[in-house]
Amino acid sequence: MPQVELFHAEPASNSLKVLQAIKEKGVPFVSHYVDLRNFQQHDPEYLKVNPAGQVPALLHEGRVLTESTVINEYIDTVFDGPPLRPADPYLRGQMRIWTKYVDEVFRPALSFLAWHKLIPGLAAALPPGEFEKRLEKIPLKEKRDKWALAASGGFTDREIETWNYQLADTVRRLEAALNGHDWLVGDAFSLADIAMFAMANGMPRGYPELMNEKVAPNTMAWRERMMARPGVAAALAMPNHSGF
Amino acid sequence: MPQVELFHAEPASNSLKVLQAIKEKGVPFVSHYVDLRNFQQHDPEYLKVNPAGQVPALLHEGRVLTESTVINEYIDTVFDGPPLRPADPYLRGQMRIWTKYVDEVFRPALSFLAWHKLIPGLAAALPPGEFEKRLEKIPLKEKRDKWALAASGGFTDREIETWNYQLADTVRRLEAALNGHDWLVGDAFSLADIAMFAMANGMPRGYPELMNEKVAPNTMAWRERMMARPGVAAALAMPNHSGF
Repeated sequence: MPQVELFHAEPASNSLKVLQAIKEKGVPFVSHYVDLRNFQQHDPEYLKVNPAGQVPALLHEGRVLTESTVINEYIDTVFDGPPLRPADPYLRGQMRIWTKYVDEVFRPALSFLAWHKLIPGLAAALPPGEFEKRLEKIPLKEKRDKWALAASGGFTDREIETWNYQLADTVRRLEAALNGHDWLVGDAFSLADIAMFAMANGMPRGYPELMNEKVAPNTMAWRERMMARPGVAAALAMPNHSGF
Repeated sequence: MPQVELFHAEPASNSLKVLQAIKEKGVPFVSHYVDLRNFQQHDPEYLKVNPAGQVPALLHEGRVLTESTVINEYIDTVFDGPPLRPADPYLRGQMRIWTKYVDEVFRPALSFLAWHKLIPGLAAALPPGEFEKRLEKIPLKEKRDKWALAASGGFTDREIETWNYQLADTVRRLEAALNGHDWLVGDAFSLADIAMFAMANGMPRGYPELMNEKVAPNTMAWRERMMARPGVAAALAMPNHSGF
């Protein structure tokens, strides 16, 4: 088998999404840790791998693939191991609607709220002018602008309210889909579970009022089922330098 | 072949995306026109088809599939006709990155700017209280909130600036990808072209300063190639009641 290399950060968010898939599939890979705390994703050396300055990125057969959702589809297509997508095209469509929802609604809401909470302190902790210097290295203008805005506490109340609503609505959707079902689509583990879990895993700690045994029993039970899977457990056991 | 039914609006935006795929594939289908001018997508009868109150929706073998990007993948999977996705998994990943970009960046920027321009006038043209009544019928809270905000001219300058930047950046990406290439991915027509064209088709009229022969020659030539395709031409020839 040609060598597979994965550039990733802590087992959380989009890095956790791909780590789960590659571990569930049982694909041997070379791990390249990218240190987000030190903005290594914006270093010139990493930009040679992914000019967008984002993790994860997969290197296989001399070609780099980006975007965690797309990488997971690729992993499921090209490598042996248990299928991570339903064979039935309609159910596969339902799976895709979940992974799309994670990318378009759930992950942005989580990310922006995290930036809102964390970036002002992070910017303040750096020597004067250093945060601005780091901002300049972000290749994507939208992301650069959002970080600058977050650092100045500039998100509007309306935006923050919308993102909080979206988190609560995501939990409602999970509860409904998991009512009487072990997995999100077609009663089989799939990339839909992987994508949702990558983002939902941290919510009982970050948003205990939204995700707990009382208000989200189906989701909490599914979370246990996820963590009991050897592939998911192996992904979660990857080195975590973030202190979270 | 079991009957295929498609619920769609004018051949523009997400409806055009699916109409192109189904016509390029040569799939016979029953067309159900949903009149967005009269908010028919929020009528109780249509909500039985798609509870989210959005077009397009595909009915096949008794099951309804939503989300234009997902519908197009389904159409390409289940029906005979020319393949609309690259066979090579890496190129298929590149295609997916384009369709994802359309959903996450290009289409939202276009939609929000259109709402910003059109909804205040549309709301003002209705009898007093009528716009509010129509708002109440929108099932998705995010969309309801955005429409209410657009009607009151409440988008911030920062938002409008970001969306305009994203449109310009989309044209830059098209120009780069089409430089020396006829199609976006792997020198073959694919769902990437279909998704981009569905949104870009109206830009020379709506944003002539961003998309014209002078600043976007590759894109304009690609647009001609797209319109010359019998399937795309057939999609564009579907009834258009919007007056645009």
